Amino acid sequence: MTALRIERVEVRDIRFPTSLEAHGSDAMHTDPDYSCAYVTIHIENDSVLKGHGLAFTLGRGTEVVVQAVRSLARLVEGEDCHEIWNDFAGFWRKITSESQMRWIGPEKGAIHLAVAAVVNALWDLWARHENKPVWKLLVDLPPEKLVSTIDFRYITDVITPAECIQMLKEHRPEAESEMKTTGFPAYTTQVGWLGYSDDTVNSLCKEFLNDGFTSFKVKVGQNLEDDKKRLKLVRDAIGPDHNLMIDANQRWDVEEAIQWVTELQEFKPLWIEEPTSPDDILGHATIAKALKPLDIGVATGEMCQNRVIFKQLLQANAISFCQIDSCRMGGINEVIAVYFMAKKFGIPVCPHAGGVGLCEMVQHLQIWDYISLTGEKQNRMIEWVDHLHEHFTSPPKVRRGHYIAPKDPGYSTEIKIRSIETYEFPDGKYWSSVQN
Amino acid sequence: MTALRIERVEVRDIRFPTSLEAHGSDAMHTDPDYSCAYVTIHIENDSVLKGHGLAFTLGRGTEVVVQAVRSLARLVEGEDCHEIWNDFAGFWRKITSESQMRWIGPEKGAIHLAVAAVVNALWDLWARHENKPVWKLLVDLPPEKLVSTIDFRYITDVITPAECIQMLKEHRPEAESEMKTTGFPAYTTQVGWLGYSDDTVNSLCKEFLNDGFTSFKVKVGQNLEDDKKRLKLVRDAIGPDHNLMIDANQRWDVEEAIQWVTELQEFKPLWIEEPTSPDDILGHATIAKALKPLDIGVATGEMCQNRVIFKQLLQANAISFCQIDSCRMGGINEVIAVYFMAKKFGIPVCPHAGGVGLCEMVQHLQIWDYISLTGEKQNRMIEWVDHLHEHFTSPPKVRRGHYIAPKDPGYSTEIKIRSIETYEFPDGKYWSSVQN
Repeated sequence: MTALRIERVEVRDIRFPTSLEAHGSDAMHTDPDYSCAYVTIHIENDSVLKGHGLAFTLGRGTEVVVQAVRSLARLVEGEDCHEIWNDFAGFWRKITSESQMRWIGPEKGAIHLAVAAVVNALWDLWARHENKPVWKLLVDLPPEKLVSTIDFRYITDVITPAECIQMLKEHRPEAESEMKTTGFPAYTTQVGWLGYSDDTVNSLCKEFLNDGFTSFKVKVGQNLEDDKKRLKLVRDAIGPDHNLMIDANQRWDVEEAIQWVTELQEFKPLWIEEPTSPDDILGHATIAKALKPLDIGVATGEMCQNRVIFKQLLQANAISFCQIDSCRMGGINEVIAVYFMAKKFGIPVCPHAGGVGLCEMVQHLQIWDYISLTGEKQNRMIEWVDHLHEHFTSPPKVRRGHYIAPKDPGYSTEIKIRSIETYEFPDGKYWSSVQN
Repeated sequence: MTALRIERVEVRDIRFPTSLEAHGSDAMHTDPDYSCAYVTIHIENDSVLKGHGLAFTLGRGTEVVVQAVRSLARLVEGEDCHEIWNDFAGFWRKITSESQMRWIGPEKGAIHLAVAAVVNALWDLWARHENKPVWKLLVDLPPEKLVSTIDFRYITDVITPAECIQMLKEHRPEAESEMKTTGFPAYTTQVGWLGYSDDTVNSLCKEFLNDGFTSFKVKVGQNLEDDKKRLKLVRDAIGPDHNLMIDANQRWDVEEAIQWVTELQEFKPLWIEEPTSPDDILGHATIAKALKPLDIGVATGEMCQNRVIFKQLLQANAISFCQIDSCRMGGINEVIAVYFMAKKFGIPVCPHAGGVGLCEMVQHLQIWDYISLTGEKQNRMIEWVDHLHEHFTSPPKVRRGHYIAPKDPGYSTEIKIRSIETYEFPDGKYWSSVQN
């Protein structure tokens, strides 16, 4: 096999000025500029094959993740991709446990976001090399090989490689073609951002209903009366049988969360998302126990730093919905570990998306889960925000409220050159024009 | 009151080449270069008063924390110190919850280490301005004022400001003079680093016994037979009545930790420190339950990212010893929140120290705890490593195995100019000489 030696890990700070329009505003993040640390892996003597990966950020702070990628680059440059893919768990351990750098994590915060961007780029590269979309690469890998990409450190008390291998299904061509035609259910978050007017909320609900959506998420947590008003608006617009979910973005302490959500029970939310600190496993468990009689589930995950936190959320019966993120944990290797644990505990995964490139990535993971792991759509859906996809070379296709399995090779993470030139911070065309 | 306006937040990457001598080596960090992101806060129109703060690191990765400090600086520069100190919790919330930057934490990893360095510098500055060591500033602050520095977000389910105020003792001049003369008990970690030979271990034990030490900590976790050999050596040297503690630096999974430590019970360790992932609250609880019949406690904390993790370790009966660190959480404001919670749960605090500047800082906190909060020395001791103190302008004084309360104003965090000039990375005299 010809070596695929990594020549260079390039990283860019890309920021979209979304704060200008209140898109994405919530109770804790009032003015996000949706951004990413964008990684391109270049191969020696090959000007065509590249790997693209990113970690989503909110604007300021991206420069810290960019620095962290630069610091990791020396562990990646010069390596042969085949050797990485042949012992991906070993490589993952090497970069997450580097003996000096692990101190500034370990496996959390800026350094782990940087790991995500680099590891996602390596998966994109692998899938492109195999000429397959990532979901198909995951489906086609032999079970032993797929499971061998996971570092099981700190999770062997709940799951082992042998158990994971056992869980994987035989190939299911009918499920693959279902994903290519009907696709996997999506839900929309676009009807209920905090910055939107009543009219906007109402007309967005109608629009998404017409588009075939049956599940709708609304931001809550800044003002109880406003929340009631907005939820009534949405519930009236979507009717009693569709799913309504609410999202507090970590706004509350434990007792406050229970009280506030209890006040909203009449609107029959399916779940309350991020009621409190993403680090508070026992707090989520307390909230889940209190809300169970009201038939309201607890969901969290977009800021769960790693598999160890997810392990405990599952052990503690703290969540009814597991919201993996594609680039907060250390890339696919770690995310699929959470999928396996969630299956073991019988908890549905409903991926976090939106942001920059998150819809692009998580569709691959959820489609793999459907084809190879759980075979389930019940209570499972992928977040959908129709925003910023025009900057990607392979934007996701959502039809009648379903993600259609992507066809292009890779992880759908390549950003268009023109978008990079415009939105690279601080020297791209857009940013240099507004700063002058 | 004259404004004390912050002109500039200066940050430097300082690295000491400790990997050359295997000082500080453990099962997970085999070649640390003890380092720090070193912050100096400059005041407008004042060339004398400055604040010094730092976050300890292990070498590579310091540049990421330095970048994070630079990113925080814009929230600090131009502020009036009096306004910060008058609403320190509000300021702390502002820098930890900045609406865009919190995404790369929140309150963890590189960005939280940066918060620690900045906040520690603000406390150093405050104490210098009051012409007191930090411990005395903490002791003298009115209870309401002291407690008002804490951001209680996410911990009100276990503790409230009113409870904290209630806990604080009246002034105890006799306790203050005891701390200035006898001091607070220390333990040594210097007898049992993994890189040391048997002879070195043996002669170090004798030396520390002669110096008056009664508690000794040994690294374990790389090889069970080596551990038994080293522990026998130390237990024989110190005798049956002194304290022997063991530290695995996160080496094990949950089951492995229980099995390994059970094998070491004959050496009667007081605690096993960091048996597994610092994020695994439920894992620590499982280990603690299994080791309780063996009379071995569980200790952790040096990598606990914030007060939310400590809250849960206490709620879950996961630790018998609470090892706060002075610069992994967001500075004194957050660390004293953990002291209050530990008192409520009846768990002794035994601060993590060593590294760069950690002994310097934690002595202030533990001495404050003794004088104002718990009044206890039972089962409480401060880690002591006699290493790198020569680089500080006010090094700690340890006599007969006790830390003597510091007299100099500030938080003992000022590094000598000459050391900065030598060890600043990569352009200081030392680093530019070895790179040539």
